[in-house]
Amino acid sequence: MSLLSQWREAVGQELDRLVPPPERWPSTLHRAIRHSLFAGGKRLRPLLALAAARACGGDEGDVLPAACGLEMIHTYSLIHDDLPALDDDDWRRGVPTCHREFGEATAILAGDALLTHGLGCLARYPEDRRFGRARLAVVSDVVDAIGSQGMIGGQVEDLAAEEEKDPAAQTPERLERIHSHKTGKLIAVCLRTGGRLAFAPPGTLERLSRLGELIGLAFQIKDDLLDVESSREELGKTAGKDSARGKLTFPGVHGLERSREILETTAGEAVAIARELESGDGPLAELASFVERRRN
Amino acid sequence: MSLLSQWREAVGQELDRLVPPPERWPSTLHRAIRHSLFAGGKRLRPLLALAAARACGGDEGDVLPAACGLEMIHTYSLIHDDLPALDDDDWRRGVPTCHREFGEATAILAGDALLTHGLGCLARYPEDRRFGRARLAVVSDVVDAIGSQGMIGGQVEDLAAEEEKDPAAQTPERLERIHSHKTGKLIAVCLRTGGRLAFAPPGTLERLSRLGELIGLAFQIKDDLLDVESSREELGKTAGKDSARGKLTFPGVHGLERSREILETTAGEAVAIARELESGDGPLAELASFVERRRN
Repeated sequence: MSLLSQWREAVGQELDRLVPPPERWPSTLHRAIRHSLFAGGKRLRPLLALAAARACGGDEGDVLPAACGLEMIHTYSLIHDDLPALDDDDWRRGVPTCHREFGEATAILAGDALLTHGLGCLARYPEDRRFGRARLAVVSDVVDAIGSQGMIGGQVEDLAAEEEKDPAAQTPERLERIHSHKTGKLIAVCLRTGGRLAFAPPGTLERLSRLGELIGLAFQIKDDLLDVESSREELGKTAGKDSARGKLTFPGVHGLERSREILETTAGEAVAIARELESGDGPLAELASFVERRRN
Repeated sequence: MSLLSQWREAVGQELDRLVPPPERWPSTLHRAIRHSLFAGGKRLRPLLALAAARACGGDEGDVLPAACGLEMIHTYSLIHDDLPALDDDDWRRGVPTCHREFGEATAILAGDALLTHGLGCLARYPEDRRFGRARLAVVSDVVDAIGSQGMIGGQVEDLAAEEEKDPAAQTPERLERIHSHKTGKLIAVCLRTGGRLAFAPPGTLERLSRLGELIGLAFQIKDDLLDVESSREELGKTAGKDSARGKLTFPGVHGLERSREILETTAGEAVAIARELESGDGPLAELASFVERRRN
């Protein structure tokens, strides 16, 4: 089994250990949390944290619970984004979305709980006291990345762009702003978290953040391309939905051909930085190139 | 001006400093956050944190930003509880609820942002390094208090009780469970936070938590009584709504007379513990007795 597959399995097991069992009170909530957390996600964000830690000489075992905290935060953002008042999605990763399965109230609260416990994991792990200051720095970084001027801001701008009446306001800059905030900042802070927990120097943390921004951008272009090119069976969620909703997308702004070129350049630059950080080919480079190649 | 009034003003000013200005991107979100944060709340939770810190010999100025983080978390819980999918409330503190004013999507995201930034404040403040370990302990305490087996669990149980068909399941124990989780745990952890940031010993932290549970219980009985006894003008939110929705309440379970008695006993015990912690009458005792006397 490849290193990334081993890590993916370890993330799943650790998440199962960190989240209360489905029968524990309040059982409906814990079942809803688990429904979304174990719906076959790619675990890209925790894997990036683990790969960054490894590239910086850190111990993957130390970083595993914090990496799972990042996956909880990512899952919270998906549950809330899918809600009827936001993107109104019925399918995600091939299964019904949380609110379709458990109702809106439970889905809102399941998202709230995942955000709470996710940040809690970052404050608590690794437990050893020598990580105390690094944990505080990680929580602070992550709060900036996912807060009102980070991921949540990207979501607000995405919704505003969808309701935009003036075509002249749908600029490439706006598209870039939406995606760098909605997707890029969380991915970048996952890499940075891995670096922090491996006690990487500031210059390396900056390289990791830059790599994360590129991976986030490549991820989003690919997402937009898949929405155009795939069927629901391949994608695990409703396909063709972006253009149906009038979403601002890369193919919409730049066309298909140019979007594929931007994806290739971006992913190429990401792989180059990853190889530099890993002094050759490693899991970080593999993840960077996976983002371009993925089918869902 | 009394000490509590001074603190209340200081909390308002500090919140204004901690939250991005309304014109900053994404402006709609920051306006929505401010709408709910500055809607005339009593600031009970931050005041309890400040009073607890003072009782333990801590510095109120040190504790102020963290106390504001607790108010952000409380406000997040109100915004999400008021949503159509949950309690579906149109009025709160005399003004339209966040989703009535800004729409559901923005309200969900404003709540998410307040939770994120609230926990962020607890990880960041007081900034001085000697508080590093205390800050980590505070985040951990608060995550337990507001997580799936804390405040969110109470909200889940509250919704379940509302949909309950079997009258035999509406027991005093269930009512107690709902309120100790939905209200009591956050109030208790506010006091505990003040104690932690004043480096109080474990025994004192336990007394503070016990005091918080009593204040939370008194607060909730009073809330249920006010819902029966008041008009919307006095209350600032829709009155008589609990019984209209079939909510499990203290007057509903114990009757009005017995509920008033339980309130008196509970508040009396709280004031006694507060006086003991403050070695006489101080802001903690004043807050404990305010909870019983309040009109909204």
